Amino acid sequence: MRVLGIDPGLQCTGFGVIEKEGNALHYVASGTIRTTGAGTGIAQGDLPGRIRIIFEGVREVVERYQPQQASCEIVFVNVNPQSTLLLGQARGAALAALVTSGLAVAEYTALQMKKSIVGNGHADKAQVQEMVKRLLNLPGLPGKDAADALGLAITHAHASTSFAAMAKATDLKRRTHAQFKGGRTY
Amino acid sequence: MRVLGIDPGLQCTGFGVIEKEGNALHYVASGTIRTTGAGTGIAQGDLPGRIRIIFEGVREVVERYQPQQASCEIVFVNVNPQSTLLLGQARGAALAALVTSGLAVAEYTALQMKKSIVGNGHADKAQVQEMVKRLLNLPGLPGKDAADALGLAITHAHASTSFAAMAKATDLKRRTHAQFKGGRTY
Repeated sequence: MRVLGIDPGLQCTGFGVIEKEGNALHYVASGTIRTTGAGTGIAQGDLPGRIRIIFEGVREVVERYQPQQASCEIVFVNVNPQSTLLLGQARGAALAALVTSGLAVAEYTALQMKKSIVGNGHADKAQVQEMVKRLLNLPGLPGKDAADALGLAITHAHASTSFAAMAKATDLKRRTHAQFKGGRTY
Repeated sequence: MRVLGIDPGLQCTGFGVIEKEGNALHYVASGTIRTTGAGTGIAQGDLPGRIRIIFEGVREVVERYQPQQASCEIVFVNVNPQSTLLLGQARGAALAALVTSGLAVAEYTALQMKKSIVGNGHADKAQVQEMVKRLLNLPGLPGKDAADALGLAITHAHASTSFAAMAKATDLKRRTHAQFKGGRTY
C-alpha cells in the first residue's frame, strides 16, 4: 500500500510518500510545494495564483507517485483570524486535488500524528524529524514540512494496520459466534 | 464577454453567469451547489467529500456555460473561528476549480459588490435580489445565494467596462501627448 501524506499550508505544503509492505515501511519521496519566492512567478497578493500552485503541485505528486491512499493534516484555528482563513483556503485546494484524483483521504490532527510517531502529542518538530528518519531508515533528517507529511503518511499506515487487525478480530468473533449458533464455520 | 460569479460557502456555493454585450447585460444561468441534504449522499462530517462536491460543481458550471472570466467573493473572518476555517476550505476548493479551468479570477468583497449593485455597501440581501432582478430583467427574484453570485458577475462586468474606459482615456491622452511632442498621430 502506498500512502501520500499532506501537510497543507499557503506558503509551503509538505508532501511525503511511503510504501507499506507487510509491517515494513519504505520511503518513496518527499518535498514541499512553495507558493512564494522568485521561482514561482507569483505575486504575494495573487491568492488565486497561489491556490493554483498548491492544487497543481498536489496533483503532480499524485500522478508521479501513484499513491492508493492519502492522509491530510487537520489544521487548526490560528491566533490571527486572517491567517486561519488563508490556511483554510490552502487546505481546501490540497483536499480538492486529493479527492478529485480518486484518493480516499484520511484526516489526522498534528497531535495524533506526533503521538503516533514520537509517542508524545506535544513533541517538537525536531523530534518528529528524528523519528521519521529512524522509522524510514533515512540517511539524513528530512526537512520540517516534509517530515510532518511523512509522519502523517506513517500515522495512516499504522492506523490502517490497526483497523485491519480490528476487522480481523471482529471477523474472528463473528465466526466463533456463528459456530456457537449454527455449529458451522463459514 | 461571459462572466461567472461565485459566492463560496461550505454548505451552499452560489453561482451566476451573465453575458455582456456592449453596455447590455443578459442573464445566462444561476443556482447553488449544495453539500448537505439527502440528495448529496455525503455525511455532515465528511469534509473531503463536501470539498469534492464544491470543486466538481464549479467545474461543471464552467464546462456547461463556458465563461471567459470569473468573479469570486472575498470572504471574511467569521465570529466563530471554526466556521472561518471551514469557509476558507470551501473557497479554496472553488478557487482551485476556477483557476485550473484557465479562468482569470477577479476578487471583490461583499461591500464592493453591494456598492456596485445597490449603491450602498451595507445593503441587505433583499435589496441585492431586487436590483439583480432589475439589472438583468428577470421575471422573478433570484435566490439569495444566486443573487449574490449574479451581483459579483455584474460587479466585474461593470468594473471591466470602467477599466476599459480608463485604458481608452489613457490611450487618448498618450496619443494627444505624442501629437504635441512629435507632431504625429500613431
